[in-house]
Amino acid sequence: MAVITVLGAGMMGSALCVPLIDRGHDVRLVGTHLDDEIIAGLRKDNVHPKLAYALPAALRPFAIDELAEAMDGCELLALGVSSAGVAWAADTIRDYVRPELPLFMISKGLAWDGERLEVLPELLRRRLPERVRDLVWPAAIAGPCIAGELARRVPTCVVLTGKDQPALNRIRSAIQNDDYYHVWTSSDVIGVEACAALKNAYAMAVAFGAGLHERRGGEAGSVALHNYESAVFAQAIHEMAQIVRRMGGDQESVLGLAGVGDLDVTNNGGRTGRFGRWLGLGLGRDEAIAKMDGATLECLEIIAVMRPALSAWQADRKIGELPLMEHMASVVLDGEPVDVPFARFFGG
Amino acid sequence: MAVITVLGAGMMGSALCVPLIDRGHDVRLVGTHLDDEIIAGLRKDNVHPKLAYALPAALRPFAIDELAEAMDGCELLALGVSSAGVAWAADTIRDYVRPELPLFMISKGLAWDGERLEVLPELLRRRLPERVRDLVWPAAIAGPCIAGELARRVPTCVVLTGKDQPALNRIRSAIQNDDYYHVWTSSDVIGVEACAALKNAYAMAVAFGAGLHERRGGEAGSVALHNYESAVFAQAIHEMAQIVRRMGGDQESVLGLAGVGDLDVTNNGGRTGRFGRWLGLGLGRDEAIAKMDGATLECLEIIAVMRPALSAWQADRKIGELPLMEHMASVVLDGEPVDVPFARFFGG
Repeated sequence: MAVITVLGAGMMGSALCVPLIDRGHDVRLVGTHLDDEIIAGLRKDNVHPKLAYALPAALRPFAIDELAEAMDGCELLALGVSSAGVAWAADTIRDYVRPELPLFMISKGLAWDGERLEVLPELLRRRLPERVRDLVWPAAIAGPCIAGELARRVPTCVVLTGKDQPALNRIRSAIQNDDYYHVWTSSDVIGVEACAALKNAYAMAVAFGAGLHERRGGEAGSVALHNYESAVFAQAIHEMAQIVRRMGGDQESVLGLAGVGDLDVTNNGGRTGRFGRWLGLGLGRDEAIAKMDGATLECLEIIAVMRPALSAWQADRKIGELPLMEHMASVVLDGEPVDVPFARFFGG
Repeated sequence: MAVITVLGAGMMGSALCVPLIDRGHDVRLVGTHLDDEIIAGLRKDNVHPKLAYALPAALRPFAIDELAEAMDGCELLALGVSSAGVAWAADTIRDYVRPELPLFMISKGLAWDGERLEVLPELLRRRLPERVRDLVWPAAIAGPCIAGELARRVPTCVVLTGKDQPALNRIRSAIQNDDYYHVWTSSDVIGVEACAALKNAYAMAVAFGAGLHERRGGEAGSVALHNYESAVFAQAIHEMAQIVRRMGGDQESVLGLAGVGDLDVTNNGGRTGRFGRWLGLGLGRDEAIAKMDGATLECLEIIAVMRPALSAWQADRKIGELPLMEHMASVVLDGEPVDVPFARFFGG
């Protein structure tokens, strides 16, 4: 039994607590200043308002001003903040970070630092206090995991990536739950984290097919636009492999849980798919955004990050290398209509 | 305009005629002795009974005893027979095969020759008359293509594989249809064809999740067993890469249309998924087969072919290399219950 503190009470951070509690750990879930309603709900009847599901009674919820108490005796720290909250999280945990405390994140995203794409564990590390910056290597979790399913103990397989193998082993042995939460480790931080971020963009394009099918009058039955969707899926994986290689990651990660696994699960539910469907139906970008009732659209964030990378890579990029990402950028950043450039796929 | 003859009037051979006719070719579709009803239907009102859809009036249907007429002036020959019909097709076309006549197949499968797994273009070549055996390299088409969608002109991307690049180029330039049928070429016959066959087996296992979800009482909404399904999907791709490598193919094919693309489309419809769902629901193998009303189950064929390969590879196989294929074999060949060995995935 270990003391584990999770900072960020969104859906994924909260769902992660379930396999940890089932392992018998003392799990403290700390809401950020955006999570007051969630913490209040958990305190009332254990129900997480966004998951719409009761979490185990053993979970200990804390508000952000109780962080010191939640960190008391902490043996493993998880960050469940959004990608936009990573800098805030780094500042918030700065007094608690030390080399002996394993640290991992479930945030997904990429950042453009003006010259290159940066994965979030690296961004976090750069924001840590100088005294520990070269001693702490934040790990991260990726792979196909819908939070509502993990909370309901659906069998789930994930990959834990980081540069510090002993820390990975300690984290893995603490969080692995042989009944339903299976964890593999990988040293390919760039490949795994790039896949985790990029899949949100590419899942949007796969969902164009569903919208286009409805727009065409959508006959019922199994005849739809699956050929279209699966061609986009294959090109998405092809482009993810190109981007991972260019960033210095390992293509093997694309073939695994973080790549094909997570793209597949993202196509099977969630807001990214709903947003892509609206675009495929012929709605303009702003109309499609309006349909989403203010939901966070990670696909917009990641495509906006990719645009300067596309420009920077222009000079030495082969024709047809990333036509789908280019097309997605023109749709969501420039308001162009959906018209997937199949003829330019796979090198043209 | 070219004269193109398609032997085999099943769903895929017939659907392939649509982009060819739209290109302006003289397309002759020859039914096998199993296709009499289909040819009769096409002659009556152009409706293909299995596709339940009218094919273009310009399509010229022929019965098998009219083969000589259908082959008159033939410039490109396509084989649309099932994997079980490849030997029959080789005998049937033996008098027409010549090095100048490009030949390609849309059959999908693998054969075990007692020592190794063989792809169908190689099996076909071995069955050709000795006079041409070393001069003709049959090509093959793979990739995500549901026949009913291609017949309805849904955008479709496929890969044409073969060892004779000039022949591939001629076939591609004849069949490519810029409006909706996009064709890439690949020299990796083993990798592409292994993927095309194996995906039928692995799609069955992905569908276990849908059945298991229903068996558990299947709450409505987006919370299902997608984490389970996508973990199986990722392991399927991982194992397909292992098998392709072992057969001497190129892992790149797994990352493309024939691998991730075709596995994805197969999960989105069709009889393999329905069969896997019955197994996931807890039906025994024989009960599940009975539910399928005599439909051909390619997954059973390919798993039966894989079993001797698994045995032959046993000695030098690493633990956990192909646990999903082993499990599928135990389910459909030995009648064991579905119990996906997640802990043994990705090398254990």
